[in-house]
Amino acid sequence: MPETSSPAPLRVALLGCGVVGTEVARGILENPIDLAARVGAPVELAGIAVRSLDAERDPAVPRDLLTTDATALVDGADVVVEVMGGIEPARTLIARALAGGAAVVTANKALLAERGPELFEAADAAGVDLLYEAAVAGAIPIVRPIRESLAGDHVRRILGIVNGTTNYVLDRMATEGLELDQAVKEAQALGYAEADPTADVDGFDAAAKAAILASLAFHTRVALKDVAREGIRGVSAADVAWASRTGHVIKLLAVAEVIGPVDDGEISVRVHPALVPADHPLAAVRGAFNAVFVEADGAGPLMFYGQGAGGRPTASAVLGDVVSVARRRLTGGKGLRESKDQAFPVLPPEAAVTRFQVRLSVADRPGVLAQVAGVLADHGVSIDTVRQSSPDEEGGAAHLIISTHAAREASLRATVDAVAGLEPVRQVISVLRVEGS
Amino acid sequence: MPETSSPAPLRVALLGCGVVGTEVARGILENPIDLAARVGAPVELAGIAVRSLDAERDPAVPRDLLTTDATALVDGADVVVEVMGGIEPARTLIARALAGGAAVVTANKALLAERGPELFEAADAAGVDLLYEAAVAGAIPIVRPIRESLAGDHVRRILGIVNGTTNYVLDRMATEGLELDQAVKEAQALGYAEADPTADVDGFDAAAKAAILASLAFHTRVALKDVAREGIRGVSAADVAWASRTGHVIKLLAVAEVIGPVDDGEISVRVHPALVPADHPLAAVRGAFNAVFVEADGAGPLMFYGQGAGGRPTASAVLGDVVSVARRRLTGGKGLRESKDQAFPVLPPEAAVTRFQVRLSVADRPGVLAQVAGVLADHGVSIDTVRQSSPDEEGGAAHLIISTHAAREASLRATVDAVAGLEPVRQVISVLRVEGS
Repeated sequence: MPETSSPAPLRVALLGCGVVGTEVARGILENPIDLAARVGAPVELAGIAVRSLDAERDPAVPRDLLTTDATALVDGADVVVEVMGGIEPARTLIARALAGGAAVVTANKALLAERGPELFEAADAAGVDLLYEAAVAGAIPIVRPIRESLAGDHVRRILGIVNGTTNYVLDRMATEGLELDQAVKEAQALGYAEADPTADVDGFDAAAKAAILASLAFHTRVALKDVAREGIRGVSAADVAWASRTGHVIKLLAVAEVIGPVDDGEISVRVHPALVPADHPLAAVRGAFNAVFVEADGAGPLMFYGQGAGGRPTASAVLGDVVSVARRRLTGGKGLRESKDQAFPVLPPEAAVTRFQVRLSVADRPGVLAQVAGVLADHGVSIDTVRQSSPDEEGGAAHLIISTHAAREASLRATVDAVAGLEPVRQVISVLRVEGS
Repeated sequence: MPETSSPAPLRVALLGCGVVGTEVARGILENPIDLAARVGAPVELAGIAVRSLDAERDPAVPRDLLTTDATALVDGADVVVEVMGGIEPARTLIARALAGGAAVVTANKALLAERGPELFEAADAAGVDLLYEAAVAGAIPIVRPIRESLAGDHVRRILGIVNGTTNYVLDRMATEGLELDQAVKEAQALGYAEADPTADVDGFDAAAKAAILASLAFHTRVALKDVAREGIRGVSAADVAWASRTGHVIKLLAVAEVIGPVDDGEISVRVHPALVPADHPLAAVRGAFNAVFVEADGAGPLMFYGQGAGGRPTASAVLGDVVSVARRRLTGGKGLRESKDQAFPVLPPEAAVTRFQVRLSVADRPGVLAQVAGVLADHGVSIDTVRQSSPDEEGGAAHLIISTHAAREASLRATVDAVAGLEPVRQVISVLRVEGS
C-alpha cells in the first residue's frame, strides 16, 4: 500500500538530455508533490547521463545531476528513462537496466522497431515493465489504449498520421499550392524538419511507428523490415490539387491491417501516401498534428489526435509511463506484458489489397476510355468511377482519373504497365492508394 | 506469473443482460482463446443475473447461465461486471462484491456520478479494482488515458461531446435545417433517442459524465450536483443557422476546467450548448459520434473520438477493463486507485468564465450599436467583435451579433438584462457560450 509512512523515494535515471530529456527533468523536478501523490512515494531524479558535461543547457537542468557514466547511473536506479535515441548505447543500457531489475521507459521508436522483441523478452524474463507510450505519436495516448482498453476486442485496421513533418508539408501543399521542395524548406525554417529530411520525407520514421503499432494491435511481432515503405517524394502539387478535385486529401499513412479472418488471416503493414476522403476524420488533421485511426470489431472506429513530437508533449507521455512503472514497483505486480500469441504472416508489399486512383494523360479523342477500361477488365481490376477531364482543364491534354475497387497491388502494377503501353496513353501521371473510404 | 501451468479460471459474474450485457456475454463466450492469452488464465462466464428468466434473448446468451439470484452470483465471483444500470440494486451488489474481494467493472455513469466516492473508498479499502471505462463515452478509451497516460501532466480543460443523441440532433439541425422537435423525432425513429428524451436533451446524461471526467482529470471529487446543466431545448434552427454564418457549429459540451493556477485554482464543471469554431477538431464530430478534447499543460491539445453508445462499442470498453482487472488478480498488485489528493473548490455556475455570443433584434437606425456597446462597457464586459446584419437579411428587423471576450457569467447576465431594457432593443434572441476558440 502506498499510503504507509514515508516510503523510500524511487530513483529515476534519465539517459539523454536533449529537447525531450530536458522536459522530462523539468517535469520531475518541478512537480514533486503531484508525482508523489500519483505514485505513492517521492520520485527522485537520481542523475542525467549526457555525452558532454559542458554543453549549454536549459537552466532547469541542475548541473550536479549530470554524469557521463551512464552505466553507473543505470545500476543504481529503480526506473530508467531512455530518451537518448539511436540504437547504441541505448540498447545496451536498457538491457542492463532490465537485467538488473529496473523498470524502463523509452521514447526510442527506432530501437523498438529494430530490437524490440529481444528487449521485451528481457523485460518479461526479469518481471519488470518496459513502457514506450512516447515512441509512437508523441503525446497521444495510443499504446496504452490499444494494449489495455482494446484488450478484449479485435483490431482490424490502423490508419495513422504518425509523422508531423510530412503532414505539415502535405498540408501546405494543399492550402498554399506549394511544391514539395518549397514546403519542405518552409518546414525546415520552422524547425519541423531536419536539415536532412530523409527520415521523415522518405517514411523511415513512420515505418518504425507502423511496426510498433502493428505488433501491438495484432499481438504479434512485426519488424521494421516487414514494413513496405514509400515516402512523399513522388507527390506533386498537381497530385494534391487533383486529390482535392476528387474529394480527397493526400496524407502519408502508416497502415496496419488484417486481411482475412481476424484470428487466422494475414497482415499488411505499410507506409505510403494515400488519398483520404475529405469527410474522413483523418482528413481534418492539419499542420504538424498526428492522429491514429483505429477500426476494431467491437469498438468500431476510434481516433486519437494530438501532438506527435516536441519536447513537452513527448515528455508528458514519458512521465505518464514513469508514474505507471513507479507505482507498480510500490504496489507490486506487473502490467500487461507484450503479447505475441498471434503469429500472423506479414504479406509482402505486392500482395497488399487496396483501392487505387490512377491519373492518366491521354489523347483527346473518342474511344480512349473504352480501351483503358478494357485493359483493367482483362487484368481483373474492377473500376469504381472514371472521371474524364476536358483538355481545357489541363492545358491541351485530356486526363482520365480512374478509381478502382480493392485490388492486389501486384495486379494493379501489371495493369498500369499494360495501360501505359496503350497508344493513346501519353503518360501515367500518378498511381495513388485510397484509404479510409 | 501467468505462464505457469493451468491457472484456475477467473469467474466473471455478469449483472444485467440488456443490449450491453448481451454483447459482453458474447465477447466472453466467443473469444476464450484470445481472452485467456491476454489475461494469462481462462476467463469463465459464471452466470448472468437478470430480472426475468423468461424474457426473449439473443441466442448467444445461454439460458443455463441465467439466474435471478444476483447476490449468490456475486458471492462466487472473481470479477463482477455491472451493466444493469440505475442506482439500486447496482450499488448494493457492487459494494458487496468489493467487500468480498472481487474486482468490479461497471458501465454505470449515473451510479458513479451519484455514489462514486463511497464505492471508490470501498474498492481502495478492499485493495481491489473498480474500473469504469465504459461509463464515459462508450467505446472511446478516455478514462485510462486521463488516469494513466496523463498522470505526469496537468489537465487544464476538457471539452467533451459525450452524448451522441444530442450531437445527432444538432447535426441534423445544421445540415437539414430541422427544428429541434423534428430532429428529436428523427433520432427516436432511428433508435438514437428514447421515447422520453429528457435524459439526453436536458443534459442529465452529459452532466453525469462531466462529473466523472472532472473528478478524474483534476484528481478530486466532483458530484453530479456540482455540475451546472443546461440542455439543448432552447436551441432553435435559427440559432444553428446563425452559428454557421459566424463560422461556428453548436455542440452540447461537457466542460471541466481549472480557473487560475493548476495546483491552487478553482474548477468549473458544466454542461451547455456552445458555439465551437468550425475549424476546431470537435466541430468535425458528426452524427451520433462522441469526442473528448483534452488540453494539458505538457501534452497540449488531445482528442479522443469514437462511438459513445451501443451494445458492441460499450462491451468493447467493458471487456478491456475485464482483461485489466483479471490480469491484475493473477499477477498481483493493484492499479492506480482513484486519486483525490486535490481539493479544488467547484465554482458556482454564475462564477464560470466564458466568452459569449449575444444575438439581439434591434431597431434599424443609427446609434443603436453605440448604445449597446456602452452598456457592455459599463458592466466591464469587453467586446471582441460586433456584426450588424441589415434588415433585409432577417425580414425587417436588424440584428446585432456581439461576441465578447471572456467574462463571468454573472456579469454577462446582468449586462444582458440591462441591454434588454434599452429602448431600441426589441429582443434578446439568444445568448450562447463560445468554447474552443
